[in-house]
Amino acid sequence: MPEPLDLTSLACPVPLQRYPHVLMAHGGGGKLMQRLIEEMFGRAFSNPILDRRHDSALLDLSGPLAFTTDSFVVRPLFFPGGDLGSLAVHGTVNDLAMAGAEPLYLSAGFILEEGLPMETLWRLVASMAQAAQAAGVQIVTGDTKVVERGKGDGVYINTAGIGRVLSPTPVGPESVRPGDVILLNGDVGRHGIAIMAVREGLEFESAIESDSASVAGLVGVLLREGIPLHCLRDITRGGLASATNEIAQAGRVGIHLDERSVPVREDVMGACEILGFDPLSVACEGRFLAIVPAEAADVALAVMRADPMGDGATVIGEVTEATSAPVTLTSRIGARRILDMVTGEQLPRIC
Amino acid sequence: MPEPLDLTSLACPVPLQRYPHVLMAHGGGGKLMQRLIEEMFGRAFSNPILDRRHDSALLDLSGPLAFTTDSFVVRPLFFPGGDLGSLAVHGTVNDLAMAGAEPLYLSAGFILEEGLPMETLWRLVASMAQAAQAAGVQIVTGDTKVVERGKGDGVYINTAGIGRVLSPTPVGPESVRPGDVILLNGDVGRHGIAIMAVREGLEFESAIESDSASVAGLVGVLLREGIPLHCLRDITRGGLASATNEIAQAGRVGIHLDERSVPVREDVMGACEILGFDPLSVACEGRFLAIVPAEAADVALAVMRADPMGDGATVIGEVTEATSAPVTLTSRIGARRILDMVTGEQLPRIC
Repeated sequence: MPEPLDLTSLACPVPLQRYPHVLMAHGGGGKLMQRLIEEMFGRAFSNPILDRRHDSALLDLSGPLAFTTDSFVVRPLFFPGGDLGSLAVHGTVNDLAMAGAEPLYLSAGFILEEGLPMETLWRLVASMAQAAQAAGVQIVTGDTKVVERGKGDGVYINTAGIGRVLSPTPVGPESVRPGDVILLNGDVGRHGIAIMAVREGLEFESAIESDSASVAGLVGVLLREGIPLHCLRDITRGGLASATNEIAQAGRVGIHLDERSVPVREDVMGACEILGFDPLSVACEGRFLAIVPAEAADVALAVMRADPMGDGATVIGEVTEATSAPVTLTSRIGARRILDMVTGEQLPRIC
Repeated sequence: MPEPLDLTSLACPVPLQRYPHVLMAHGGGGKLMQRLIEEMFGRAFSNPILDRRHDSALLDLSGPLAFTTDSFVVRPLFFPGGDLGSLAVHGTVNDLAMAGAEPLYLSAGFILEEGLPMETLWRLVASMAQAAQAAGVQIVTGDTKVVERGKGDGVYINTAGIGRVLSPTPVGPESVRPGDVILLNGDVGRHGIAIMAVREGLEFESAIESDSASVAGLVGVLLREGIPLHCLRDITRGGLASATNEIAQAGRVGIHLDERSVPVREDVMGACEILGFDPLSVACEGRFLAIVPAEAADVALAVMRADPMGDGATVIGEVTEATSAPVTLTSRIGARRILDMVTGEQLPRIC
């Protein structure tokens, strides 16, 4: 196989002297839009399905399938460890993986603000293409809209994704049973704190990088190893607190966590203290829960730890019978408390 | 079958006294977002796949499949004959139909601006649900983001769609052959002019209504009748001019149109003259080209005319060998000219 092209090292293929910024006409359905699609999106995302350039992509694919969508509005567009483009791939790829599916195809919908530097758009598009290549998915269809200056914020990206379900049994809250063990693939809170640090101008001894990454490969390994996955859930907006509460409510079970087993990096913990955040409510973009029967927990943990995306995996809790509070926690100082989800948001525009 | 519920007549299910406007917290991943999803989206779009509420929808579906996406940013949000919500359904459903596919499933991604009246969101969501029901598709997965006031424009909606390809032969520009006949399912220019009339405060004797509608039913009829469809293309941004130029270029053929056969309503023509638009470059949202072999043209025309979505169908031109200009036209006064696509846009934010 030839070495994959590093797109992010290439210059913007749109002539910048002529079109240094995105114009309204780039979304008008005429020649300028056609050229933007050909020169930029067509070049970065090229594959035989996309290259056909019809209104729809044609997929030769049999079910059961997983289908999901996410819009990405994170600010800043570029942050330590990632950017809007790679995040838009990882977010949707991970949602598919959480259904026990192998992510295969993505769509990409761009809402561009008039005046966006063309070079910025290219950096994001190239990063998206790299992330898709790394995650083993193809971007097969897309759409571009341009809104007037002041009616957007540079660029918003929507991705929808289709994957082939590999798990032989249903993966979801309805499959969770009391006694099941809850595994987490690594430390939490880095994505949210990486974003917040840039926004607030916080400086740390070493930069806190987002954990934004595809976990689809690791989920594929777990499935191939025959681990019975009762439920998978990525930890995004609302953090571990929202993820566990949603599972407990939907699965009509209780969840008990041991906070001491939840890895949080020291610098992330320090930043949370400064900002007044609970790390258990801070978003990640490369972390997920795997809920498995107790007898499979040891093997699952070993499989996760053998993968780069799970080398910090730990057992963080267990599923119980439903109780009055969906999620309880033994805290770092050994006290037992309810872990509720936040009401609103502590970190707007995190993904 | 029970009479379908008219959702648009129902009051907003979110308590408006408490939440008259969308808050940043409605996109934060916490309780408020969960309630918005349950009360509004869950209620309007309810179906067994969506109701499962996992990160991905699970579809039991076999290929070949069509997959497409579109973001919708039209202004104003409500216009004669439609609104952003129904348009977001029709646009994607029609893109799937243009692949010779039966549209089945949609995703819905909302980018809401802080401060959007909750009632406005509900009207759009209810309209989306009605349009989906009418088009025979289910909204099975979704996402909600909220951006700060001044970073959006009320609401943007992305839909992605999956359909099952019904056409036994490839439907697309690559199947078009010299001698093929080009049919159009009705008058052009109404969507664009309906939008523009609202924006410019133009008044006509009777309101010009958008043609926004699903054409999937009509395409299904054409397929069931065994019409060999070489290519289908909906006429959206850039109008008939962009659609024909794109087909001619991609199919490496020429296209000749007879402008006198292209239906344009008199009031639409008058508005185009006032605004300086060529009706052949104005967007439609319920109009498409069907390109068929000459021997199938009469039957295809009869089938189209028997359907409410095609009762104004006409033969508007034919496919020729490739020439120096992709598309030529015999004009209303009988002169022959090149029909080029517009460079930029004449109507921003039309869809």
